[in-house]
Amino acid sequence: MAKPKVFEKPTGVKDYLPEAVAKLRTIERNVLDCMERWGYRQIMTPTLEYYDTVGVASSTSDEKLFKLLDKKGTTVVLRSDMTAPIARVVASLLKDHPLPLRLSYHSNVFRAFEDEAGREAEFFQTGGELVGDATADGDAEVVALAIAALKAAGVQSFKIAIGHVGFLHGLFEEALPDRPDAQDALKDRLLQRDHVGFRNALRRFSLSEFDRDRLESVLRLRGGREICERAERIAEHEKARDAVRHLREVWDALCDYGVSGHVLLDLTVIGDFSYYTGMTFEGYAADLGFPVCNGGRYDNLLRQFGRPAAATGFALKTNRILELVGEPTALPPRRVLVAYSARRRTEALRHAADMRSRGGTVVVTQRVDRDPNFGAAGCAASLGYDDVIEFL
Amino acid sequence: MAKPKVFEKPTGVKDYLPEAVAKLRTIERNVLDCMERWGYRQIMTPTLEYYDTVGVASSTSDEKLFKLLDKKGTTVVLRSDMTAPIARVVASLLKDHPLPLRLSYHSNVFRAFEDEAGREAEFFQTGGELVGDATADGDAEVVALAIAALKAAGVQSFKIAIGHVGFLHGLFEEALPDRPDAQDALKDRLLQRDHVGFRNALRRFSLSEFDRDRLESVLRLRGGREICERAERIAEHEKARDAVRHLREVWDALCDYGVSGHVLLDLTVIGDFSYYTGMTFEGYAADLGFPVCNGGRYDNLLRQFGRPAAATGFALKTNRILELVGEPTALPPRRVLVAYSARRRTEALRHAADMRSRGGTVVVTQRVDRDPNFGAAGCAASLGYDDVIEFL
Repeated sequence: MAKPKVFEKPTGVKDYLPEAVAKLRTIERNVLDCMERWGYRQIMTPTLEYYDTVGVASSTSDEKLFKLLDKKGTTVVLRSDMTAPIARVVASLLKDHPLPLRLSYHSNVFRAFEDEAGREAEFFQTGGELVGDATADGDAEVVALAIAALKAAGVQSFKIAIGHVGFLHGLFEEALPDRPDAQDALKDRLLQRDHVGFRNALRRFSLSEFDRDRLESVLRLRGGREICERAERIAEHEKARDAVRHLREVWDALCDYGVSGHVLLDLTVIGDFSYYTGMTFEGYAADLGFPVCNGGRYDNLLRQFGRPAAATGFALKTNRILELVGEPTALPPRRVLVAYSARRRTEALRHAADMRSRGGTVVVTQRVDRDPNFGAAGCAASLGYDDVIEFL
Repeated sequence: MAKPKVFEKPTGVKDYLPEAVAKLRTIERNVLDCMERWGYRQIMTPTLEYYDTVGVASSTSDEKLFKLLDKKGTTVVLRSDMTAPIARVVASLLKDHPLPLRLSYHSNVFRAFEDEAGREAEFFQTGGELVGDATADGDAEVVALAIAALKAAGVQSFKIAIGHVGFLHGLFEEALPDRPDAQDALKDRLLQRDHVGFRNALRRFSLSEFDRDRLESVLRLRGGREICERAERIAEHEKARDAVRHLREVWDALCDYGVSGHVLLDLTVIGDFSYYTGMTFEGYAADLGFPVCNGGRYDNLLRQFGRPAAATGFALKTNRILELVGEPTALPPRRVLVAYSARRRTEALRHAADMRSRGGTVVVTQRVDRDPNFGAAGCAASLGYDDVIEFL
């Protein structure tokens, strides 16, 4: 194993220089403030969690968890999402707090990749969880909040695609009873958004023309409220019909939120988290192939932590949004350099303190004649200062 | 190995509920804003670093580093401080940026403990680094900034004790030449602030009465500028005399900053980081036995990353400050519950959106008759709301 070079850092992790930090911090603050106004209060949980509790409950596959042993020999993981840790807190520290609970977070999370090329091992998520509300109105609130959060983050143009795992589970059970492998293969193609692969898989299975047609028609179930009727025509299964009924209610509530222009129903959306039990959604920015947020209902997760409760949540993919949004429109603060000689130091430092107390940004520096870095006020701009004040 | 209970988290790590997060975030923002006004710009670095680079260069002893293997089999660590990662960035991403550089951070760091009783495995540090300034004025700037940062964090009453590793190294070399073990034993007692142990160690070594007396008198070298003269009387060694001369210059500059009331010289302060090369300091809050900040000069660290440069830095112990400072004086935002029936949902949601757009904090909820959690406006207070508006 070659030793890493001294300036290297592990694959898949990033340094953020001041310009990027300023942008990231603006997104963070604006989104958290937005969620606060919706009554979602911020919590923080540790980077390290037990593998056997939060690690196993998380949606991340085992080989993508960063694992280590603590000093007692127990396996701990670097958190891979915030939903499972929040479920742990709701069931422990907050166990006496009445439901519903509205909680928000901004946090780094971790994924270990076999082949790290271009994939991030550490990245930020900013999101919210509504715990203890089983209604369609609760689902709509979380979708509407995700929309408000994307706007607060500075994403101008985007769509939220909403699906329901119950619809696909019901339909596949009806068309492919007792064939869980075939069902999983189809779900996997949808998860990968691989419609060609989905059609190919359908052709491989022995299906009646009727079943093949109606399964293939799922790919066309994208649009507004009108697709609910088409969805009900292809699915008889109680689970599927309940799902469609629920989505219709969510849609109507989203109309009342005044955000249906940002929303489409898309029954191919299955959600990439194994713990989802109901509505799921993904947000896409205009002209971008990758999602900028996702979310859904997970009514079974809290039970694993000993406090059964319905829940819906979402997370913004904050790093992708960071790449997407433009520079902040506010000008960076004016930076002034105060250069002083030993003789006039008291005066210079007082002046700097006074400017800072009025909100100014001031760097002070002793004027050393042999120092090539400054001296002439003319070089202020080249050093990134807007002005130089000399006390010499 | 017993499995952890489902609601447990690893020893030494914490959850922060909304009240604690609000307080922590206020400290974080105020301190970062303060440093920004002094020209220190924030950077962020990854949680994971290579053991062979940042891990080895950090001040943390090997057994206190959290280590894991990445997928390629290289040892990585959870960062144990921010000084070494910042040195890496200054020598890599920022290698073409002229010095001096002023950088700040707010970050979690990690320590693995054999016996974790009461010790934190993950905690926050908020600090700054001045890279590329070798002067006493640079040291004074960093001490003055640490004082401004403690005030910004809400610490009311505190003292900064300033020492210099060169003074003790020089004095011990003079009094105990060729006895590095004895020198280390004495330094270790000072590091532990164990003055009784220091005196006992002195009695164990075969020393002339003169040497024992002058080494013991180090314990009394605490005060203002006047102790410099006494320090010079007991140390002939060039290294020690240079150190005292330097501290006098730092003291004079701190007087010009107008902060000498917060400062004392204390030549027993040795600094607990192995990379310190010059002035070191610790900040103590009134009536508290533990430091709330520390810092010092580390002129050799940048060289390890391939860009030799002088540097001074400090870090606030943010978690300790969190316990120390009172509740924020600003009232928490007023929280309003908007309860609606299905019939009047559009109206209710519009009202909520309008209040939020004017900065209000509003939770919306469907009024379900069987729900015991609300309904009567009278229970608003018990649920933590300042008001309930009903659209029924």
